[in-house]
Amino acid sequence: MNNKNYQIGIIGASGYTGSELARILINHPQTDIVAITSESHKGKKFSDLHGQFSGIVDMELVSADQLDVTGLDVLFLALPHGVSMEFVKRWKESGIKIIDLSGDFRLSSPEIYEVWYKKDHTYPEGFDTAVYGMPELHAEAIKKAKLVANPGCYPTASILSLAPLFRSKLGIDPDGAIIDAKSGITGAGIKASNTTHFSNVNDNFKAYGIGSHRHTVEIQEQLSFLVKKSVNLQFTPHLLPVDRGILATSYLKIEKEMSQKKLDAMYLDFYRDKPFVRIRKQAPSIKDVRGSNYADVFPFWDARTNRAIIISAIDNLVKGAAGQAVHNMNLMLGLEESMGLHQVPMQP
Amino acid sequence: MNNKNYQIGIIGASGYTGSELARILINHPQTDIVAITSESHKGKKFSDLHGQFSGIVDMELVSADQLDVTGLDVLFLALPHGVSMEFVKRWKESGIKIIDLSGDFRLSSPEIYEVWYKKDHTYPEGFDTAVYGMPELHAEAIKKAKLVANPGCYPTASILSLAPLFRSKLGIDPDGAIIDAKSGITGAGIKASNTTHFSNVNDNFKAYGIGSHRHTVEIQEQLSFLVKKSVNLQFTPHLLPVDRGILATSYLKIEKEMSQKKLDAMYLDFYRDKPFVRIRKQAPSIKDVRGSNYADVFPFWDARTNRAIIISAIDNLVKGAAGQAVHNMNLMLGLEESMGLHQVPMQP
Amino acid sequence: MNNKNYQIGIIGASGYTGSELARILINHPQTDIVAITSESHKGKKFSDLHGQFSGIVDMELVSADQLDVTGLDVLFLALPHGVSMEFVKRWKESGIKIIDLSGDFRLSSPEIYEVWYKKDHTYPEGFDTAVYGMPELHAEAIKKAKLVANPGCYPTASILSLAPLFRSKLGIDPDGAIIDAKSGITGAGIKASNTTHFSNVNDNFKAYGIGSHRHTVEIQEQLSFLVKKSVNLQFTPHLLPVDRGILATSYLKIEKEMSQKKLDAMYLDFYRDKPFVRIRKQAPSIKDVRGSNYADVFPFWDARTNRAIIISAIDNLVKGAAGQAVHNMNLMLGLEESMGLHQVPMQP
Amino acid sequence: MNNKNYQIGIIGASGYTGSELARILINHPQTDIVAITSESHKGKKFSDLHGQFSGIVDMELVSADQLDVTGLDVLFLALPHGVSMEFVKRWKESGIKIIDLSGDFRLSSPEIYEVWYKKDHTYPEGFDTAVYGMPELHAEAIKKAKLVANPGCYPTASILSLAPLFRSKLGIDPDGAIIDAKSGITGAGIKASNTTHFSNVNDNFKAYGIGSHRHTVEIQEQLSFLVKKSVNLQFTPHLLPVDRGILATSYLKIEKEMSQKKLDAMYLDFYRDKPFVRIRKQAPSIKDVRGSNYADVFPFWDARTNRAIIISAIDNLVKGAAGQAVHNMNLMLGLEESMGLHQVPMQP
Repeated sequence: MNNKNYQIGIIGASGYTGSELARILINHPQTDIVAITSESHKGKKFSDLHGQFSGIVDMELVSADQLDVTGLDVLFLALPHGVSMEFVKRWKESGIKIIDLSGDFRLSSPEIYEVWYKKDHTYPEGFDTAVYGMPELHAEAIKKAKLVANPGCYPTASILSLAPLFRSKLGIDPDGAIIDAKSGITGAGIKASNTTHFSNVNDNFKAYGIGSHRHTVEIQEQLSFLVKKSVNLQFTPHLLPVDRGILATSYLKIEKEMSQKKLDAMYLDFYRDKPFVRIRKQAPSIKDVRGSNYADVFPFWDARTNRAIIISAIDNLVKGAAGQAVHNMNLMLGLEESMGLHQVPMQP
Repeated sequence: MNNKNYQIGIIGASGYTGSELARILINHPQTDIVAITSESHKGKKFSDLHGQFSGIVDMELVSADQLDVTGLDVLFLALPHGVSMEFVKRWKESGIKIIDLSGDFRLSSPEIYEVWYKKDHTYPEGFDTAVYGMPELHAEAIKKAKLVANPGCYPTASILSLAPLFRSKLGIDPDGAIIDAKSGITGAGIKASNTTHFSNVNDNFKAYGIGSHRHTVEIQEQLSFLVKKSVNLQFTPHLLPVDRGILATSYLKIEKEMSQKKLDAMYLDFYRDKPFVRIRKQAPSIKDVRGSNYADVFPFWDARTNRAIIISAIDNLVKGAAGQAVHNMNLMLGLEESMGLHQVPMQP
Repeated sequence: MNNKNYQIGIIGASGYTGSELARILINHPQTDIVAITSESHKGKKFSDLHGQFSGIVDMELVSADQLDVTGLDVLFLALPHGVSMEFVKRWKESGIKIIDLSGDFRLSSPEIYEVWYKKDHTYPEGFDTAVYGMPELHAEAIKKAKLVANPGCYPTASILSLAPLFRSKLGIDPDGAIIDAKSGITGAGIKASNTTHFSNVNDNFKAYGIGSHRHTVEIQEQLSFLVKKSVNLQFTPHLLPVDRGILATSYLKIEKEMSQKKLDAMYLDFYRDKPFVRIRKQAPSIKDVRGSNYADVFPFWDARTNRAIIISAIDNLVKGAAGQAVHNMNLMLGLEESMGLHQVPMQP
Repeated sequence: MNNKNYQIGIIGASGYTGSELARILINHPQTDIVAITSESHKGKKFSDLHGQFSGIVDMELVSADQLDVTGLDVLFLALPHGVSMEFVKRWKESGIKIIDLSGDFRLSSPEIYEVWYKKDHTYPEGFDTAVYGMPELHAEAIKKAKLVANPGCYPTASILSLAPLFRSKLGIDPDGAIIDAKSGITGAGIKASNTTHFSNVNDNFKAYGIGSHRHTVEIQEQLSFLVKKSVNLQFTPHLLPVDRGILATSYLKIEKEMSQKKLDAMYLDFYRDKPFVRIRKQAPSIKDVRGSNYADVFPFWDARTNRAIIISAIDNLVKGAAGQAVHNMNLMLGLEESMGLHQVPMQP
């Protein structure tokens, strides 16, 4: 054990990502949270915003502009896309490891970013060094990275579902994949809106962003790196009346000979020694992973239709955001990769 | 207006279908509920089982065995499959119109029934006269029928989504359709079980019956009649943490030239003069139809992937069960088809 | 039956009260909705705001300022308090019957209003003619009224719970009553806020307005008229993770001899011939009345502690708002009092 | 730090208490779970029952009858009342510390137990040594105890709310207290029943056990020890549509001079150095403590009515069961009392 803990700054306190980072890091054995920033709430206590931290994290929030980052080891950016890139730029020479939880550096180029995010990118050089922070695919690159782009929540569930098939030599049709995904409302953020009003969500369910959600391109890119072809797949998000969790149901025709046994073996092999992917023997539910960093993946072979159906479940705020970010931090700091991430899923 | 109301019997009081039939029929202007049966609760009042009917329907429940059906005009069978066929058989000579809400006579033959329901069929002759009670497809046959097999809830949402495309001359691949469907818990019935325990459903979500749900064959058969080919499609049900409602997201490649405008026109044309199908211009949510007999259908054309994505929403207990049954009754009795079915959806 | 239906205007379309009025009135046999107003949404269709009315109420919204009220019979004001008084004033000479669903004229004087609502009252003369629109207490006055102040949701549940005891000659201590009330989120209105954000409500529960909620004085006044003494009681509201419904648990010591039988008899007697109050023999749940105009009341005598505990349940949007308003309209127009209000509670 | 961890047995795996004990103990730095028992599921894996433990606790369940307790340090009994007493009796001579989470030894005598639990007590001698395991009241006795009776969930929330007032010298009327409590459905256990069916709970709310709930006597006894008088108070439980959490709203008249400041000071003083009671400055919600061992208590003084209103919130499965049990274990073993109990509440 080190004598000295790593010094951590959380940039952006007001959202769910910020509060989840604090929830995890406060019990991490080798980190100290030394600063949390907020522009709109500076001067307040962190626990004034997030009452659950009363008596646990009562630290005063400071403006990011006034933050002296000297001596910090890691910065987590829990900011909206478009805002995050400015802070990456600001601290690019500081030598501090940065984990960006926004979408600003997840794609392969600023050009593609500008098409799907409909926004100019003000720090295109960042793409040269940013590493896509999915440990199951890119652990070696993450270990050496100074800037990690933490994956989106839907892409995490979707890519983990399909990666083994896209890396296989099965000759699948990469454009044939359909991902029908369902997310809890925290995916829409902490801000009050018609979308997040209780009575519009409770006892309700709907699809949104049909054919146009920007996570589509993030999924396509990562899968295209695996299959070494362009990918043009279907991704449809839906809004569940739950707080947390994503469940993705993915469909892919397989023309070559396949069986349940072969499919299981392929998935078990792909995720061997990946501590947070659990290959299940039955369809997981989102409470099986709630509050934890696990991704539960269930591959099913339908011999009647020659389709693989993959069900995956994650907590969008943990494996889909703050937990995966801490996993990335562990890799970047050379720590044991699951350190501080042993929370058991909370069911019920 | 008739002076004399039609005399109605509801066979099976204890489930949600029975209580929804009573909710609708009690305010129908041309029906009197004269008997409600229950084997396990005979002697109790209907409102003892369903407290919301206190002071509204306090009628005593009787055993179906002791029911004198003389003088009745319509019998609704709100019974489990396997049980329902016995009562259809019992009353086959009575001349009374029967609407069976179970799955016992929905398929094209007893042989197919026995494969998917894993149960012997004890009244195979019933298939000769039973009419599949989906008014949007079979109104003329329903008007003349003595025995109507009321469609399943998932099939109602699924068939209404895809019927226009399967009847079109677009040369679609009938085996390419994928229906990813999500249902409220009432679809699992009123019986207490691990499946229906609050803490297993609340804040949760899961898939079930993957590749094997028996509604698959019902959907396939009805669509095959339209496309005049066999159909081998994918149907995946999921369990939503809501009481009522089904939302189905259906995917189908279209190789011929298509556009949003053409697709809209095709759907509007197909459902012209169908009072309960509303073609929407945006994706419906399940509360848009809750408590009502409407089916909201939103056809979307994704030019990037050449796929039609159809979203449909129904209340599984109304359009997917009791409401559609009353619609069938109206047709069988020669009444205006929407009579008694003008409930406005309850949102919030 | 009249040949001519009554002509109705709904002032204020965007909230839940407006949409519930439309849900009820559209199926009322003697009313036509001829105008619905909205300042912020004028020009849009009513069904653009409330998608469930698609194809049912597609009427264009107009500004109240441009509304020609000539020929209208009844105006429902579904407006925030403070705004409503201006419209009552504007139309005071029109002769049109007005039912105000805000809190502007519920109290006994403008002075008390100003204390509890912390706002000047700009039409104090309105208090001279306004009748408190609780049909169970004031039916005769309502029949003759031109201006009815529709009761608040909490007061409806609370007053109906305690009225029989406060009118009795039991010598109860009027300051000893404690009302612990729990409401669904629709009581907080349709506006998006931290309070109504799904993740702050779902799987959650809290008290609010402790010791200071303005419905306290409304309850106190109505009960003081019955007991003919001043009343200074305790009222604590709580926020339930449900859309609709109020359940109030009220406590009152009774020093005189009492029994369950006597208590039941007192309540049955008090509410004899009141079509919407159901005296129950077991504690009601809020779904027993959801979507309906019923108030379910369960009086319980605890001989161990000498306390009456009264449980009441209403739908805050129906009996606590739009339904009670239509009940008042029926009385004001000389119609059968339950006309158009026969919706069966929706459970599940 | 010890080299050797304490060896723990969990008796009763199938319920929520068993799974919560495992969730906490698996990350406790000084315990090893060495055996988990189940009669109905012996031979299965723990994670077969509770899927969230997949890959975390896959230990095989054994019958308690076949359990060799030699070498164990602590036994947690997560069994129904009536069953638990048999195991306490069986292991009374073993020398192993026992924490009983049932109601079997919480009351002051077998006679009172038999009145309220309507059941014979088969091990009355147990009452001689059992200590009521509420660390905030009885820490010294718990440290020396061999048998701890872990408090009920409602009593934990209720007693923590009222203890400072009952121990004060304010001359309160002990029979005047009213506790209006609301609990999540997990309080009703994991067993499927009408009570726990999703559609009977979701979007619903009701009172139950009015005037007769057996937690009443447990609360009364503990408060009577503080006030040194008999206590005959009112306790009314309600069922919330949430998984976890209890919120209790307690009312008590105070005739002596009081103020908000005095009340706050009294509560802060009473709970000084109690690591899991947080005196809040605003009313807590149940998500402020969800998943954690905190009890949040908010004392409010209503000068208008001369009443103290106390709001308390706990997680019924943690502070109200498994967490408090581990707290007791820490005390019994001489460990730091908050060890292994630093879970941050999970909001959202």
